[in-house]
Amino acid sequence: MPNQPISGNDLARFSGPQTFMRLPSADTAEGLDVGFIGVPMDIGTSWRSGTRFGPKQVREQSAMIRPYNIQTGAAPFDSLHCADLGDVAINTFDLKATIDIITKDYDAHLRHNMIPIGIGGDHTMTLPILRSIARKHGPVALVHVDAHADVSEDMFGVKVAHGTPFRRAVEEGLLDCDRVVQIGLRGTGYTAEDFDWCRDQGFRVVQAEECWYKSLAPLMAEVRDKVGGGPVYLSFDIDGLDPSAAPGTGTPEVGGLTAIQGLEIIRGCRGLDLVGCDLVEVAPPYDTSGNTSLLAANLVFEMLCSFPGCKRR
Amino acid sequence: MPNQPISGNDLARFSGPQTFMRLPSADTAEGLDVGFIGVPMDIGTSWRSGTRFGPKQVREQSAMIRPYNIQTGAAPFDSLHCADLGDVAINTFDLKATIDIITKDYDAHLRHNMIPIGIGGDHTMTLPILRSIARKHGPVALVHVDAHADVSEDMFGVKVAHGTPFRRAVEEGLLDCDRVVQIGLRGTGYTAEDFDWCRDQGFRVVQAEECWYKSLAPLMAEVRDKVGGGPVYLSFDIDGLDPSAAPGTGTPEVGGLTAIQGLEIIRGCRGLDLVGCDLVEVAPPYDTSGNTSLLAANLVFEMLCSFPGCKRR
Amino acid sequence: MPNQPISGNDLARFSGPQTFMRLPSADTAEGLDVGFIGVPMDIGTSWRSGTRFGPKQVREQSAMIRPYNIQTGAAPFDSLHCADLGDVAINTFDLKATIDIITKDYDAHLRHNMIPIGIGGDHTMTLPILRSIARKHGPVALVHVDAHADVSEDMFGVKVAHGTPFRRAVEEGLLDCDRVVQIGLRGTGYTAEDFDWCRDQGFRVVQAEECWYKSLAPLMAEVRDKVGGGPVYLSFDIDGLDPSAAPGTGTPEVGGLTAIQGLEIIRGCRGLDLVGCDLVEVAPPYDTSGNTSLLAANLVFEMLCSFPGCKRR
Amino acid sequence: MPNQPISGNDLARFSGPQTFMRLPSADTAEGLDVGFIGVPMDIGTSWRSGTRFGPKQVREQSAMIRPYNIQTGAAPFDSLHCADLGDVAINTFDLKATIDIITKDYDAHLRHNMIPIGIGGDHTMTLPILRSIARKHGPVALVHVDAHADVSEDMFGVKVAHGTPFRRAVEEGLLDCDRVVQIGLRGTGYTAEDFDWCRDQGFRVVQAEECWYKSLAPLMAEVRDKVGGGPVYLSFDIDGLDPSAAPGTGTPEVGGLTAIQGLEIIRGCRGLDLVGCDLVEVAPPYDTSGNTSLLAANLVFEMLCSFPGCKRR
Amino acid sequence: MPNQPISGNDLARFSGPQTFMRLPSADTAEGLDVGFIGVPMDIGTSWRSGTRFGPKQVREQSAMIRPYNIQTGAAPFDSLHCADLGDVAINTFDLKATIDIITKDYDAHLRHNMIPIGIGGDHTMTLPILRSIARKHGPVALVHVDAHADVSEDMFGVKVAHGTPFRRAVEEGLLDCDRVVQIGLRGTGYTAEDFDWCRDQGFRVVQAEECWYKSLAPLMAEVRDKVGGGPVYLSFDIDGLDPSAAPGTGTPEVGGLTAIQGLEIIRGCRGLDLVGCDLVEVAPPYDTSGNTSLLAANLVFEMLCSFPGCKRR
Amino acid sequence: MPNQPISGNDLARFSGPQTFMRLPSADTAEGLDVGFIGVPMDIGTSWRSGTRFGPKQVREQSAMIRPYNIQTGAAPFDSLHCADLGDVAINTFDLKATIDIITKDYDAHLRHNMIPIGIGGDHTMTLPILRSIARKHGPVALVHVDAHADVSEDMFGVKVAHGTPFRRAVEEGLLDCDRVVQIGLRGTGYTAEDFDWCRDQGFRVVQAEECWYKSLAPLMAEVRDKVGGGPVYLSFDIDGLDPSAAPGTGTPEVGGLTAIQGLEIIRGCRGLDLVGCDLVEVAPPYDTSGNTSLLAANLVFEMLCSFPGCKRR
Repeated sequence: MPNQPISGNDLARFSGPQTFMRLPSADTAEGLDVGFIGVPMDIGTSWRSGTRFGPKQVREQSAMIRPYNIQTGAAPFDSLHCADLGDVAINTFDLKATIDIITKDYDAHLRHNMIPIGIGGDHTMTLPILRSIARKHGPVALVHVDAHADVSEDMFGVKVAHGTPFRRAVEEGLLDCDRVVQIGLRGTGYTAEDFDWCRDQGFRVVQAEECWYKSLAPLMAEVRDKVGGGPVYLSFDIDGLDPSAAPGTGTPEVGGLTAIQGLEIIRGCRGLDLVGCDLVEVAPPYDTSGNTSLLAANLVFEMLCSFPGCKRR
Repeated sequence: MPNQPISGNDLARFSGPQTFMRLPSADTAEGLDVGFIGVPMDIGTSWRSGTRFGPKQVREQSAMIRPYNIQTGAAPFDSLHCADLGDVAINTFDLKATIDIITKDYDAHLRHNMIPIGIGGDHTMTLPILRSIARKHGPVALVHVDAHADVSEDMFGVKVAHGTPFRRAVEEGLLDCDRVVQIGLRGTGYTAEDFDWCRDQGFRVVQAEECWYKSLAPLMAEVRDKVGGGPVYLSFDIDGLDPSAAPGTGTPEVGGLTAIQGLEIIRGCRGLDLVGCDLVEVAPPYDTSGNTSLLAANLVFEMLCSFPGCKRR
Repeated sequence: MPNQPISGNDLARFSGPQTFMRLPSADTAEGLDVGFIGVPMDIGTSWRSGTRFGPKQVREQSAMIRPYNIQTGAAPFDSLHCADLGDVAINTFDLKATIDIITKDYDAHLRHNMIPIGIGGDHTMTLPILRSIARKHGPVALVHVDAHADVSEDMFGVKVAHGTPFRRAVEEGLLDCDRVVQIGLRGTGYTAEDFDWCRDQGFRVVQAEECWYKSLAPLMAEVRDKVGGGPVYLSFDIDGLDPSAAPGTGTPEVGGLTAIQGLEIIRGCRGLDLVGCDLVEVAPPYDTSGNTSLLAANLVFEMLCSFPGCKRR
Repeated sequence: MPNQPISGNDLARFSGPQTFMRLPSADTAEGLDVGFIGVPMDIGTSWRSGTRFGPKQVREQSAMIRPYNIQTGAAPFDSLHCADLGDVAINTFDLKATIDIITKDYDAHLRHNMIPIGIGGDHTMTLPILRSIARKHGPVALVHVDAHADVSEDMFGVKVAHGTPFRRAVEEGLLDCDRVVQIGLRGTGYTAEDFDWCRDQGFRVVQAEECWYKSLAPLMAEVRDKVGGGPVYLSFDIDGLDPSAAPGTGTPEVGGLTAIQGLEIIRGCRGLDLVGCDLVEVAPPYDTSGNTSLLAANLVFEMLCSFPGCKRR
Repeated sequence: MPNQPISGNDLARFSGPQTFMRLPSADTAEGLDVGFIGVPMDIGTSWRSGTRFGPKQVREQSAMIRPYNIQTGAAPFDSLHCADLGDVAINTFDLKATIDIITKDYDAHLRHNMIPIGIGGDHTMTLPILRSIARKHGPVALVHVDAHADVSEDMFGVKVAHGTPFRRAVEEGLLDCDRVVQIGLRGTGYTAEDFDWCRDQGFRVVQAEECWYKSLAPLMAEVRDKVGGGPVYLSFDIDGLDPSAAPGTGTPEVGGLTAIQGLEIIRGCRGLDLVGCDLVEVAPPYDTSGNTSLLAANLVFEMLCSFPGCKRR
Repeated sequence: MPNQPISGNDLARFSGPQTFMRLPSADTAEGLDVGFIGVPMDIGTSWRSGTRFGPKQVREQSAMIRPYNIQTGAAPFDSLHCADLGDVAINTFDLKATIDIITKDYDAHLRHNMIPIGIGGDHTMTLPILRSIARKHGPVALVHVDAHADVSEDMFGVKVAHGTPFRRAVEEGLLDCDRVVQIGLRGTGYTAEDFDWCRDQGFRVVQAEECWYKSLAPLMAEVRDKVGGGPVYLSFDIDGLDPSAAPGTGTPEVGGLTAIQGLEIIRGCRGLDLVGCDLVEVAPPYDTSGNTSLLAANLVFEMLCSFPGCKRR
């Protein structure tokens, strides 16, 4: 039988190991279908820091999640062998070194036939992950939920930081640009061309206001059409959601998606050939109730429930 | 004239007695139409504790509420004689003893012809309340707002805790099962059958996703049809609402109802023969802004405004 | 070239002067198109105090805003010469004296041809501002977003406090009553006539429940029809929004507008002859995540983007 | 038998009425030896506000105090008939009016032979209290614990605010200046003469640094010598203590007294003819753990234990 | 070589497993010299709950501790084989059942020749631990640091709760009463006899005021004389320390020990035959800075450094 | 007349520019005696981040400080011309680049004859400051207050981070090693040699336990003897103080100095030829009451009061 989370009926939820959903730990991805990987970093952030504690808090809150998804019928632990692979041993004083360490770590894990779910940490981490993903799968499609396009040319002259990963990914050929969708973009910027660069690459840009007041189920049908037919990476920045839903993040932007829309996006990815995911930018020092981490943990669980091979009951 | 709350024009809101809405206290329910009863307990909780301070904080925040409901026209203190009956003297070290104390207290109050509104406290309290209610009224209909069905067989082998009250209530014949509605259920569980047990009893189960993006006024028309024609109990777990609306609770679940939907549910109960209500699971240590308690206090006020005999202007 | 905010690419956002959007300071409004003016006061509040720190915190959070409004295309700093005029030197022990100081300060600024944006501070401040505005422009139209009508006859016998400014403004002939709209009113009151007084003056009162579940773009078309054709003042009390969107305020009321509706209202004021605005009632001690101040800062920026003469790209 | 607090063995501490130590309430001081009086105000503050919620929070935390003082042997409820007299009905918009209301309220209470303990609220309140005290007892001695001398000539031209009460008291002849001691003064000021005015009146000024690293028992022997032999008023500003002991206050100053020294001062007042006391400047919005209110509640209890007529066991 | 904590030079401190000091986990005490055991419970508390999260937070903060004790020279991991034994699987709804589970768990661990350090959790846990300890070692000496004597006859008629463990322990013959020391007692009580019962058993009671203003090194020499010459248990309630040092606890009492005195007490236990220790009553919901947990983690580390067999460099 | 801070009698303290003590800003050090320089960085931290917001918060709290030091008689603004020089424009993504920018900025300022006071920011900043200081003054004496020696060989292979500045400074010949004193060192480490390296360089190492329970005035006499007779730099890490005094920092260590001892150290530096100072490691996200920033601001003010040329009244 695949690994099972410790049940809240066997051990009180505020007890036990602090792995994702209190699953077993594993040192290697060998034999796993899915691995949870913490990337505790915040040195790529531009406003509030603190995401270095994100993996810790998301795992703590994940203890509340039970193994069966009542709303979708997904029972991931019936069929998927999952474990918590611990944290990438980042170098907290050196952003460049950290980026290389992440790729190296992912490369090692991806020698095995496993889907990695990265728990951040700031969004810088997605570039080194994509490098590893693309090395294995070639250029991938991308579903990117975020308040920001993260395609800046640079930040203070630095080429890789939390505002630039997708510009770099395009330049390096890591993305199949016609199969990229960005959802939730909004906020303020520097020029009228901020999102145009994305569109010029062939991205489908869904600004937040296109999502207001409605279910995103129809949008996700369109998304599946666009990104289907090949490997897909899902990168979910918690600040894609509105600050009322996810206050504990470093660069919140007003007018964002609801938590429900966040759930719909991930559930709408079912059927896609997901080869990797991440959930980034949870900043515990600003998450005074713990509920942003809780939401993030649930979104990670929903990713698992949308994976190829996840059984439904 | 019925009891009146102290007016904010007579005494500054941050001042005065900490009773519900700064109403007079009463030692007995004699002569009252409605009594507010605190049930300060959290030893039935499974994740975060702290609801023992719920009655205190809900009363504190209730000082902001003025006596007339502008939106519905309800003027409860024109016709209903209300008082704060203080707290049940629970035994904080013994869950079983506490359960019996609650029933005994309610029995005493219900010798008088009064509608009790319980302010929790964890959801365990609803079972002993229903025992007392059913002793007086026979099996009652139930409108139950919650993220969780609270129908577990047991928790750690314990038969009565905050995840089991409605299973026990059914077994003990306290509910008229064809007249039970549960609204807002969601989250994760252990088996695909989690909510099926409810449906098998004849409950109408309204999962949260059925409520997304829309007014619940139509649903409440259906609810009134189903539960009308006899005594009804309303149990409102604040975690039925989304964590963005009600962060200060012990087992929050993502994807819940909005505060507005919460208002619509209670307003939609007008016309029913409400014989008792409760508002449970406010956990002040996690309510950093005080706004969950404020919302809870308003929901309690709206219950009052939906009661039989409440005049409108 | 008009004044520009310091760019986040030139100086890290957590750095630099604490002016609105890190714009230059100015001692006088001479030559400005728009001036930001702090009014740090809370002695007009009736429940929680703390708004005296509002201007400080709104300015701090405004450092996150970039100069171009992606969603509307507005590029205010292309055409409008803006500066931060600092704070009104209020007298924190004397409400009456403070009210006079505000008017005097505004009078001095309004000798220049500038649109003032007041950052509060409690809502009492709007009365002395309107006195100054009306001295220059005559009676003005008003778009008023709030949970409360703020038209009480008095509070504890005091004629000017945060619950009375618009009653006084009407009495003093500062408003063109047929061109007044109040949006978001709700909550509880003392009599059935609470909002009737407003309607009797000719105000259009849009209660919160009229706004639930829908875009306010159509409403704003109606609003523009009603208030257009002359000078308009916009007063935005952050408690017009729901506590889930804006927890950090002194008298929150449940069932309010969403942040998105707040944006729509301000964007919907484009085309009006706005002659002054304010954003009031942010109470930092209750804004534990800082996100209420962030939202307020964005709403102020949106005001700027809706001003006559603001260029679009 | 005198009034007794509700015992924590009879009713859980987080339960019951929110009076001081859960004592009975009283509408009048008739028959009482001691009365607790809340003065919920903050409009006299110059930096952080919030003391309006002080009485509420001090009462809430006082529920933890048991009736017998183990360290001193004092058993106040054996001999002193105590009750909570509720709050002074201050006018939160008008500092001058509030000052008069306080005096009037105290005058009414002092028609009875009772010792009042005022729970603040900002320090402005001590002036109107002293007016009432002096009307009954003539000029009184004063033991004043504080970081600040509170003898400013005025604040923004206002004669009565939280930085001026003792200058006014001297001018009005309310104090017996040779029998005044100020303890804990420190911090920064405007001139070298700041504390000289006090010394010129005959006050004994004990600056905080005179207290560092040592027991204040010897100092209190000296104090008793100086202030004994007639009626004494004790005014304890919580900011006399160091911010590490009492973080929840509006104008904290570094380098202050320890909580232990605070206890020693009050215990050292035993034997004096105390005719009134107050504990002021607790600001709950800045008391994130609740422990400042808890400390304040204990200091109030210690006042009671030092009163003439308090029995020891 | 004995188990080593993960070094902060190998893996960033905010990363890695959440065991005590990031030591290896172990399922059994076999082969260990010292085992860390979480006891996540709060259902024995009488005021604020929340200690159920104590073990989690103490472990999280323990990641900051490095392996060598600079001040004492202790290098525990040179000679002592240590591991984290995880949590006792308590029953959060049943205090009596939980008590038995703790004893059973400890019994199993104590079949091996290991010193257990319990991390709480409320103080109720010490009774079942002492039952297990006494079964192995016979009646033991006790060094007990606390604000409270914890020798109540009962609480609400319940014989075992967080205010009673040492009364029960005496009755059950678990303690060698002539070798018991209680340090830090203070606060308020119900009768003049509260601490007399202790003294009547032969306990040395060191009230907090005996400790004020001085090093406890001399006291600890006396303590070693009294309790030496046989097995000793050390029970450290974090509320023995002053709220300024340890705000995050459930029943804080003013006038307590400093953190430095806490260190001195534990360091002063060196040379004793310690057979078990615990650190109890850390309540994370009230530990807003995390520093109470940090202090607790350091106190646990100091216990380890005082153990028999701990090498010094 | 030298620059004066805005008086709290002229403008309410919660108002006005957010410069240190509301002094005038300056773009250049020309003509200044003292300049305050923010260094908003946290990418050199190893546990909790957040010090990037330190300069902002220290300046905000400094608004409470009045210009005259009552305890010492220092009146710095009588004789010293001071201004706030704003922030160093650090590169938040690149630690190495930031280090060079700091030196460059300081070099520019030090072309003028001014004493810089750096407000951090993490302790990494002191190395680049010392490079600039030594370029001007040659090797300097050092008074270093800290919990940590900050002389690690490297951190994760990185040579310059917040745990290494003084090792690098020695290697680069920036310090006059016989005139270096480190005060407050404590905590845990990796080897018995951790502080020996310091002693081997000729440093006087004053471990925290040498300071417990006593005034540091005698120590400072010794310090003045050791470091006098030439230029001295003072570096004050707020974590030198105990977490009870300064909770808002990133790597707190238990058993530290009191705030009073911190004051004594700085006051004890009077008479030394101070050529520069810094106050580092205030982490606002963990400073929930704001009091750590307030303490830091006071310590900075005390530095100013100890400067050569500061007049006393």
